[in-house]
Amino acid sequence: MHKHKFRDKQGEEYKALIRRLNRIEGQIRGIHNMVDEDRYCVDILTQVSAVQSALNAFTKELLSQHIHSCVVEDIRSGNDAVVDELCCLLQKVMK
Amino acid sequence: MHKHKFRDKQGEEYKALIRRLNRIEGQIRGIHNMVDEDRYCVDILTQVSAVQSALNAFTKELLSQHIHSCVVEDIRSGNDAVVDELCCLLQKVMK
Repeated sequence: MHKHKFRDKQGEEYKALIRRLNRIEGQIRGIHNMVDEDRYCVDILTQVSAVQSALNAFTKELLSQHIHSCVVEDIRSGNDAVVDELCCLLQKVMK
Repeated sequence: MHKHKFRDKQGEEYKALIRRLNRIEGQIRGIHNMVDEDRYCVDILTQVSAVQSALNAFTKELLSQHIHSCVVEDIRSGNDAVVDELCCLLQKVMK
């Protein structure tokens, strides 16, 4: 079974994540089109770099939500395993 | 007007790029679903990190194609501006 975290679908936090993901999906489709339309490599790679930045921004946003909610709650309730989990996650996302 | 570079739509180079982009598109949709299904933040961020790696692999692939074709041809034909352009591009994609 997967671990879950409730997200209010009317809330700003959820909407901000979905807005970013929709934009990133559009950017990837745009890159697909550029490859199909024989656009110059440098222009395509510049767009890929913009998607990397957008994914970084998504990571920072979700990471902040995670620390403010899950991490704080788990530490308060004595579940200190969340601290190692967070440090391990940071290793992954900051690589 | 945009600068162009012809890509053989039957060739392996083109197909490899499109294969990677299709996979990345699927991964982004998967992340979208995970957010909708209230999946745990750490699992979502692990997936985002996988997309970053996939985008890096796409960048390296297209960069290699670019250097082997456009850059070599431009240098041979005396268009040295391509060298500065490449170094400037590397600054962007290696940030």
